[in-house]
Amino acid sequence: MCERASEIAATSTASISASLATSSALPTVAAIRPKRSTPQVNVIPIGVDKYLMGGFVCWSQKIALIVEDSELVARMVCNSDRKQFASILFTGAPNTGKSCLAAIATKCVESTMVRVCSGDDMIALTDVAKVTALRKVLEDTYSNTVNIVLLDNVDRLIEYCPVGPKYSNVVLQALLILLKKTPPPNHRLLIIATASDQCARAFGMHDLFTSVFDVPPLSTVDHLMAVIEDSEVFTDADYGRLRSRLSERSSSYSIGVKKLLDLLELAKQSDPRTRVDFVCTRLEKLISL
Amino acid sequence: MCERASEIAATSTASISASLATSSALPTVAAIRPKRSTPQVNVIPIGVDKYLMGGFVCWSQKIALIVEDSELVARMVCNSDRKQFASILFTGAPNTGKSCLAAIATKCVESTMVRVCSGDDMIALTDVAKVTALRKVLEDTYSNTVNIVLLDNVDRLIEYCPVGPKYSNVVLQALLILLKKTPPPNHRLLIIATASDQCARAFGMHDLFTSVFDVPPLSTVDHLMAVIEDSEVFTDADYGRLRSRLSERSSSYSIGVKKLLDLLELAKQSDPRTRVDFVCTRLEKLISL
Amino acid sequence: MCERASEIAATSTASISASLATSSALPTVAAIRPKRSTPQVNVIPIGVDKYLMGGFVCWSQKIALIVEDSELVARMVCNSDRKQFASILFTGAPNTGKSCLAAIATKCVESTMVRVCSGDDMIALTDVAKVTALRKVLEDTYSNTVNIVLLDNVDRLIEYCPVGPKYSNVVLQALLILLKKTPPPNHRLLIIATASDQCARAFGMHDLFTSVFDVPPLSTVDHLMAVIEDSEVFTDADYGRLRSRLSERSSSYSIGVKKLLDLLELAKQSDPRTRVDFVCTRLEKLISL
Amino acid sequence: MCERASEIAATSTASISASLATSSALPTVAAIRPKRSTPQVNVIPIGVDKYLMGGFVCWSQKIALIVEDSELVARMVCNSDRKQFASILFTGAPNTGKSCLAAIATKCVESTMVRVCSGDDMIALTDVAKVTALRKVLEDTYSNTVNIVLLDNVDRLIEYCPVGPKYSNVVLQALLILLKKTPPPNHRLLIIATASDQCARAFGMHDLFTSVFDVPPLSTVDHLMAVIEDSEVFTDADYGRLRSRLSERSSSYSIGVKKLLDLLELAKQSDPRTRVDFVCTRLEKLISL
Amino acid sequence: MCERASEIAATSTASISASLATSSALPTVAAIRPKRSTPQVNVIPIGVDKYLMGGFVCWSQKIALIVEDSELVARMVCNSDRKQFASILFTGAPNTGKSCLAAIATKCVESTMVRVCSGDDMIALTDVAKVTALRKVLEDTYSNTVNIVLLDNVDRLIEYCPVGPKYSNVVLQALLILLKKTPPPNHRLLIIATASDQCARAFGMHDLFTSVFDVPPLSTVDHLMAVIEDSEVFTDADYGRLRSRLSERSSSYSIGVKKLLDLLELAKQSDPRTRVDFVCTRLEKLISL
Amino acid sequence: MCERASEIAATSTASISASLATSSALPTVAAIRPKRSTPQVNVIPIGVDKYLMGGFVCWSQKIALIVEDSELVARMVCNSDRKQFASILFTGAPNTGKSCLAAIATKCVESTMVRVCSGDDMIALTDVAKVTALRKVLEDTYSNTVNIVLLDNVDRLIEYCPVGPKYSNVVLQALLILLKKTPPPNHRLLIIATASDQCARAFGMHDLFTSVFDVPPLSTVDHLMAVIEDSEVFTDADYGRLRSRLSERSSSYSIGVKKLLDLLELAKQSDPRTRVDFVCTRLEKLISL
Repeated sequence: MCERASEIAATSTASISASLATSSALPTVAAIRPKRSTPQVNVIPIGVDKYLMGGFVCWSQKIALIVEDSELVARMVCNSDRKQFASILFTGAPNTGKSCLAAIATKCVESTMVRVCSGDDMIALTDVAKVTALRKVLEDTYSNTVNIVLLDNVDRLIEYCPVGPKYSNVVLQALLILLKKTPPPNHRLLIIATASDQCARAFGMHDLFTSVFDVPPLSTVDHLMAVIEDSEVFTDADYGRLRSRLSERSSSYSIGVKKLLDLLELAKQSDPRTRVDFVCTRLEKLISL
Repeated sequence: MCERASEIAATSTASISASLATSSALPTVAAIRPKRSTPQVNVIPIGVDKYLMGGFVCWSQKIALIVEDSELVARMVCNSDRKQFASILFTGAPNTGKSCLAAIATKCVESTMVRVCSGDDMIALTDVAKVTALRKVLEDTYSNTVNIVLLDNVDRLIEYCPVGPKYSNVVLQALLILLKKTPPPNHRLLIIATASDQCARAFGMHDLFTSVFDVPPLSTVDHLMAVIEDSEVFTDADYGRLRSRLSERSSSYSIGVKKLLDLLELAKQSDPRTRVDFVCTRLEKLISL
Repeated sequence: MCERASEIAATSTASISASLATSSALPTVAAIRPKRSTPQVNVIPIGVDKYLMGGFVCWSQKIALIVEDSELVARMVCNSDRKQFASILFTGAPNTGKSCLAAIATKCVESTMVRVCSGDDMIALTDVAKVTALRKVLEDTYSNTVNIVLLDNVDRLIEYCPVGPKYSNVVLQALLILLKKTPPPNHRLLIIATASDQCARAFGMHDLFTSVFDVPPLSTVDHLMAVIEDSEVFTDADYGRLRSRLSERSSSYSIGVKKLLDLLELAKQSDPRTRVDFVCTRLEKLISL
Repeated sequence: MCERASEIAATSTASISASLATSSALPTVAAIRPKRSTPQVNVIPIGVDKYLMGGFVCWSQKIALIVEDSELVARMVCNSDRKQFASILFTGAPNTGKSCLAAIATKCVESTMVRVCSGDDMIALTDVAKVTALRKVLEDTYSNTVNIVLLDNVDRLIEYCPVGPKYSNVVLQALLILLKKTPPPNHRLLIIATASDQCARAFGMHDLFTSVFDVPPLSTVDHLMAVIEDSEVFTDADYGRLRSRLSERSSSYSIGVKKLLDLLELAKQSDPRTRVDFVCTRLEKLISL
Repeated sequence: MCERASEIAATSTASISASLATSSALPTVAAIRPKRSTPQVNVIPIGVDKYLMGGFVCWSQKIALIVEDSELVARMVCNSDRKQFASILFTGAPNTGKSCLAAIATKCVESTMVRVCSGDDMIALTDVAKVTALRKVLEDTYSNTVNIVLLDNVDRLIEYCPVGPKYSNVVLQALLILLKKTPPPNHRLLIIATASDQCARAFGMHDLFTSVFDVPPLSTVDHLMAVIEDSEVFTDADYGRLRSRLSERSSSYSIGVKKLLDLLELAKQSDPRTRVDFVCTRLEKLISL
Repeated sequence: MCERASEIAATSTASISASLATSSALPTVAAIRPKRSTPQVNVIPIGVDKYLMGGFVCWSQKIALIVEDSELVARMVCNSDRKQFASILFTGAPNTGKSCLAAIATKCVESTMVRVCSGDDMIALTDVAKVTALRKVLEDTYSNTVNIVLLDNVDRLIEYCPVGPKYSNVVLQALLILLKKTPPPNHRLLIIATASDQCARAFGMHDLFTSVFDVPPLSTVDHLMAVIEDSEVFTDADYGRLRSRLSERSSSYSIGVKKLLDLLELAKQSDPRTRVDFVCTRLEKLISL
């Protein structure tokens, strides 16, 4: 029932595993990016699709390991006769691509419907309505199949805001119970969730999930260049100049991959002649924010 | 009316008491694990059953002592003509197997119905509905029999969350009164509860119960190996390598038994040749979380 | 109308006052314990009875002094033509026997009905219902007789929990007013209350009552032995060994009398040959909790 | 329309002013105590009466000064053609006799009805009902007469509790407005209030009143002896022994006059031969609380 | 449309500006005090009148400058073709005469109706009722005339209490919006508000108003004497003695002008021979409070 | 579809870009100020107009850069086939002209309707009503056109007040979701928001927007003079004296451009001969507030 996420990835553009196995310096970077305007409905379930719209760049070995390990958990739920229920949490700073990695994890299990539960559909619902929706999604599991539930952005589900702090305790308590509740016999359930690390830490979510993956920001020049080179925004000549400019910084970088992709897209609007400068200046500003 | 929990345990696989009596180094480890797919309805009351699904590994003498002492309290409730009401609290970090130990404690008293009261059945109930349910469970005691009530996860009953902190004071106050309320004459009542140590400490629960058992995490290589050897995940050759790898760590370990069991189950999915490495790396990551 | 509490006590087993007067080292300990299964309905009013179920051990001179002083206040309310209204508060750590001492204090006044107001009857009542109940109990005083009201566990009446902290301000404010409100002319009213010292201190209750008695925990080997010897759990030979074992501890003890009585009852279930060891080990654990 | 409070006092027992004028060491102490069972309806308005039940001992020159100064404010409201509205606040620790001094202050104005507003009549009223009652009492002023309003125990009116802290902001805001609202032309209004100093300080009440009097506790042996000698609890021989016993204390005393009066009343129940000892021991305990 | 506030003042008693212009030591003090019982309906609009009942003493050059500058803002609203909307805030400690200065500021604009919005009319209104009243007062501006709105005591409007702190966020948010909302074209609006400096600072009100004036307390002997000499409470001989007595103090004074006026009025009730002493003693006590 | 904001600006008075390109010392200052009474309905959409009423002075190169960069984001939304959804946040201290810059940013996209959502229209609405309004504004996007939404003053939308702090979590959570929700395919959406930097920082808004611009206050004499010279309040002779007076200050300035414009408008009411002095004194007072 399970095939490797990396193999799925291989059907799109390149093989991460291979490149990662041969080189730790990441000389070539594999990207799992759905061809724009070429919908992959058959492979990626509807609803999860949108989390992969921006494409996926595997910018470091750490990311490759996260993909590999989440695949292992999915395989366990599919195969184990002892542990037929597991849960994965992707935490990390904002804009690090948590939802994208979660969506990729759902692809490990073939031909199943992924039920998505995110804040998008729950704006201004009452606590009770939210809990009812959560229960419906998490308790309606179908016999003899692997059920996958994607809880995107737990922060919004429990209406967490660190100012105060405020959150819906009713929804949180329901979630704490539901995340521990084993499905009925002969049902296999995999819960995949994303949450900001601030939220995950505040509510001690690390103890609630079978596996927790902390998605890191980009921190080295290699990380940055992996994404930049994949973006096709610069001429080949610019890459060298960019790398040397980026290497001038004494302290390490810390930026989410989505912020960097946004910046690169913005750079396309700028004068190609000053683009290297444009990106370096804005990058510095983004990091110092 | 009472038989020893360890004797019940002896009917499944091995005798803890014996092994513990002869050796403090725990050379052999006894496991109270119900044969999977062999329901033990007669021995373990329905409802409590699910807490024993994962099996029970008695990984240290401390755990054996907790089993023994909780048995003593149950015996007192059965036999004493002065103290016919007692309560036991199992506290500890998450995933240390508190509910499992609580379920084993209910087995000390023969042929009685255990009433279970856990958050599972109370999702999003109002405070008043919760209090009504609690009263029903705790006040409906039957004459001339030993009544056992299992309050699983008091944290969820009172909707405790340390962020804020928040909790239902109405449910807490009812619980504080009910836990102190002696049953009518000629009724024998044993309350067994589980709670996170954070919750137990915050609300001063140590003073509310006749006995409090603090269930510890695994902290030494012996503890870890006791569980690992019981898991049948490795070849005999691997055990030695694992023990020596685990002994390299300078500081002590701290991991809940359930987390370790999950990790071992996950290891079954990994390549048998690199499994020792797989477990050691993930264990290190789990502890540093 | 008033007789001495110690005389009532004398009708049960022994005379505290006498023994206390002759010796400050407490060589013999007097116990006010109602014979089990011999109801003393005539002496102790119904409702208060249950607080004396566990028996009463006068384990130190301090306790004797508290009994004596609370008797004096009761006598003042009976006799004084200037002060016909008084209130007593028993505070202290949990399990120190506050309610028992309060119940004994109600016995000072002969042939009167004691109205009891405790959390037991108020689970999950609304604030307004609680206040109404409080007013009814405290304002319904009968002419020309001494009225006694026992407010057991003020913590539960005001729903106090130090986490937050939370409490019902409506009930508290009503209590603050009612505790200061003098009854109509020619009515004599004695209010006897118990509260945890944490609660009493937090709400400044020391200023609200005519007399406040801080019920201490047991702290010396003499205190412990007074209770242990009264318990009839050990053989005479064991007492000496226990005293010498207990004397080994360098720092002082701190344990509520009810916790010790529970431990002694539990000890009855243990092997008589290892009982001294059993009690010493558990005592050490209880104190270090 | 105004006569001196001290003159009213003079009609009962003795003249404070005189004794205070001649001696600063307070050799004789004047007591304003209504003969018990001799109602003084004509002089002291009904409702205020109860605050004078315990009698009044002018135990120091500070107290005499407070009486004198509050009289001055009352006289100003009666006579001034510029300031026809004033307010007095008596603050201080609990049991210092604030309400008694407030009641005495109302006696300065002859033949007027004092409207009393205290928590006694407001138990568990809603905020809106309280505000309505407050407005009625404070805004219903009658033309051409001096109106006096006694707000006893502002703490209870605003439901203040320092734990949290909690209070009714709705009632507080109404009070803040009403205390500043000048009555219509040709109406003379004197508001007299009492509040704990904790409450007064927390809410900045010192700025709201024309005059604020901080009623002190007894702090010297002279203060204590003034009250004790007035109590007629001891024989003349005992007074000397008491004074010398009390003088042994190195640090100063701090006790409310009402607590001392209660203690003296309690002492009447004790053995006359050991009464000096009885009082000294309990006094020490009261202060160290 | 505008005339100078100082000129209006000049029509009552004396000219502040003149005296201030010639001397910085304030040898003579001008008082803007309406003749009592001589209503000035034509000059001062009804409603604002009451804030000027106590008279106005310009006790320092700072106060004169505040009057002058607030006049300038009013003139700008009347004349400018660019800025037809402005707002003034008078902050300061309690009893410093903020409302009086605000009322004087309303007099700068001739023949206009001042709409007053103060807590007096809003006791115990709901938040929504308050917001409706605020909107009505601030949005009902009449074309082609200068509209003046006096928001007296913003603390009470938003029900601010620093204990907690508590305030009505609904009213505050409405106020924050309304204070920034420019009136429709061709409407001229001047908002004049008073607030305690604690409230103004807490809510960052300094950024909301065009001009903010911090009304100071009296701090030097010159300030005090300016008010005292204006009060006509003392004989000419006393003034010298008072000034020398007041000069003895080493640290500076800090007292609101209203508190001093109250004290002087109270002094009228005291014996003229000891009046200097009376005032000095009470002044010292007021400051040390 | 997009033209440069600076070109629009060029149609009013002068070219910022040009002046900025040639000189970093800002010798001449370009002002984008709509001719008063000459409505520019065609260029600036109705609703946004009012934010440009006060005119716009580009007082430093930083401001010019903000205008330029926000233009770039708008261009990206118009042109990119990968990123058709972006959001801009203008933060900064009060009165720094955030809303004005936001309004200018809306002008980058030609012939589109800007939907404005500000607190002005939401006074005292319920949370649900606010969320409904927000959703309507943000989700009603029209196909094939660039949609622009201006969320003015997010502080007021979420009813944020740092005292407490208080805010509407319901509205905030809805905003957090809506700001991340990509519009349906073939819809282009640009969200432009303003918020105080206190609010933006507290709620971590920097991660929510594609671009964040921190609008600074004026801090150098050059900044101040740029605005002052543009104001036409002084004679040419005064400018030199002002610059030298302002240069005397040792520490740097920090004042919002709107506060300075208000001060200059107020200065018009003052005597032209002392106007330099008038402005310098008030400026000093404003900064020290």
